[in-house]
Amino acid sequence: MTAESERNAAADALFRQRLDGVAADMENMLDRLLGPEPVEGERARPARLLAAMRYASLAGGKRFRPFLVVETAGLFDCPRSQALLVGSAVEFVHCYSLVHDDLPAMDNDDLRRGRPTAHKAYDEASAILAGDGLLTFAFDVLAREETHTDPAVRMELVLALARAAGLGGMVGGQMLDLSAEGRFANGEPEALDQSEIETLEAMKTGALLRLACSGGAILGKADRQARLALERYGTAIGKAFQIADDLLDAEGDPAMVGKATHKDDAAHKATLVRILGAEGARGKLAELVADAENALASFGAKADVLRAAARFVAERKR
Amino acid sequence: MTAESERNAAADALFRQRLDGVAADMENMLDRLLGPEPVEGERARPARLLAAMRYASLAGGKRFRPFLVVETAGLFDCPRSQALLVGSAVEFVHCYSLVHDDLPAMDNDDLRRGRPTAHKAYDEASAILAGDGLLTFAFDVLAREETHTDPAVRMELVLALARAAGLGGMVGGQMLDLSAEGRFANGEPEALDQSEIETLEAMKTGALLRLACSGGAILGKADRQARLALERYGTAIGKAFQIADDLLDAEGDPAMVGKATHKDDAAHKATLVRILGAEGARGKLAELVADAENALASFGAKADVLRAAARFVAERKR
Repeated sequence: MTAESERNAAADALFRQRLDGVAADMENMLDRLLGPEPVEGERARPARLLAAMRYASLAGGKRFRPFLVVETAGLFDCPRSQALLVGSAVEFVHCYSLVHDDLPAMDNDDLRRGRPTAHKAYDEASAILAGDGLLTFAFDVLAREETHTDPAVRMELVLALARAAGLGGMVGGQMLDLSAEGRFANGEPEALDQSEIETLEAMKTGALLRLACSGGAILGKADRQARLALERYGTAIGKAFQIADDLLDAEGDPAMVGKATHKDDAAHKATLVRILGAEGARGKLAELVADAENALASFGAKADVLRAAARFVAERKR
Repeated sequence: MTAESERNAAADALFRQRLDGVAADMENMLDRLLGPEPVEGERARPARLLAAMRYASLAGGKRFRPFLVVETAGLFDCPRSQALLVGSAVEFVHCYSLVHDDLPAMDNDDLRRGRPTAHKAYDEASAILAGDGLLTFAFDVLAREETHTDPAVRMELVLALARAAGLGGMVGGQMLDLSAEGRFANGEPEALDQSEIETLEAMKTGALLRLACSGGAILGKADRQARLALERYGTAIGKAFQIADDLLDAEGDPAMVGKATHKDDAAHKATLVRILGAEGARGKLAELVADAENALASFGAKADVLRAAARFVAERKR
């Protein structure tokens, strides 16, 4: 082993450990936040709604977005409890988007992570309201004083999350995705070019992953240069995440991947893998990992776990 | 005419004028906010999503909630432009809730204010996403510096809106309403007692109306006494609003009211009008108007238009 590959192997092991640590802490934090007792300003927490919100957000997921918040915030020595609160807000938004995307009127999925989707476990109305409740709750959490004592920091987080999740971000990206599938026009999938696919993906999945990275920078009151570096890192991670996902769909074994594959092909869906070919896509992935690693140059060895995260994103098998 | 009834008549006329003024200003403000150009942090504004969001929020409604924000903020000499921004956020939340409540899986309504509902004019997926986009956008607007230069004020607004709209507020109230209709149990409507009905209504419609009133107080950095007064006013207005609505449903002529009536009876729905009887409900309404007026005592004649608003809520014919 070279010195570099030894350092990478150590960082990869540490990455696994940190990812698991965040997942465990997140479970506790989400459970606490979604407890049965109303907080100030709330009248009551209706049992069925609370249960559906808990079903949709507890017990599952790698918690990769909260991990990114915790690790990027860690570069600035932020208290872990604050980073976990910001991570919770990002995760609530991620979970709400899955609940709404799974609805019959959207992707009409019955299973998610091996369990019935929220509208199957409950019903459509409860799933719609649970999604609405989780989205609203994300802003509730960001606005709390425990998230950061400086209201200007909380405010910047609220604005950044709203932009990443809304019309010009995640929700807009889902709309572009439905359009691309031919949902609204003549039923034919749209033949998107590379730049259109990149826009769709930057919005649908990229915006929230990038926000998870810049969230740590905002929380840490990072200077402009550090912020730009983490945004660049987050952008590269987001693109790599999507290409890896498309590669798994194109080439993966359903038993390994843990979900149905070859769905994009069946839907004649425009993806970068279809445009660049599998080899081209792998080349692009390697470039993106290098770019993500390079973006972290100024943070030195402190950012080794984030570099390992970039490799993990590109190489994941499920 | 007595001096008091003359003063009331003048205030009623001024109320109409101010309500219309806010409605006109809101139309411009919402149109500007939902313009086609992406703002910083947004990648693009997908045309179909933007169109559905505009359809759901422009061209319609009395804009009563924004009016309440403008008038209560006016007690503290806040700039009107700030109050209109906060009013926009509240209105976006109100409009999103109508879009989602109208969905087939919820109340399954085809018409709203005489036009097709959003999922009829577009489709279900677009309506779900437009609602999600409007809710997210409300927090975007509150977090902007133009809404208030002090981030602590914006933060308090975000927290108050999230609490009013979420699990323990509006969304929770809609869930209780669906349960009360017998949606989840054996199909039989639940026989709610008066206190359960009051909780349901305080959450479903009351929370956002109250927030519209306390929003002005937050924006105006009101002292504790003034805040409590406006919360008490908003609570009374919210209760009166719902009772008047139920009375219109029980006794109104559809042609006058502008929508189908006798829906609650047909659904065997638990309302205060059914429990108290029409006369009892009218007595309660008068009490609530008196309470709303009294809550404003410390503001003197400055609050006459808000007193007129309380009378309007109780006496409205549609």
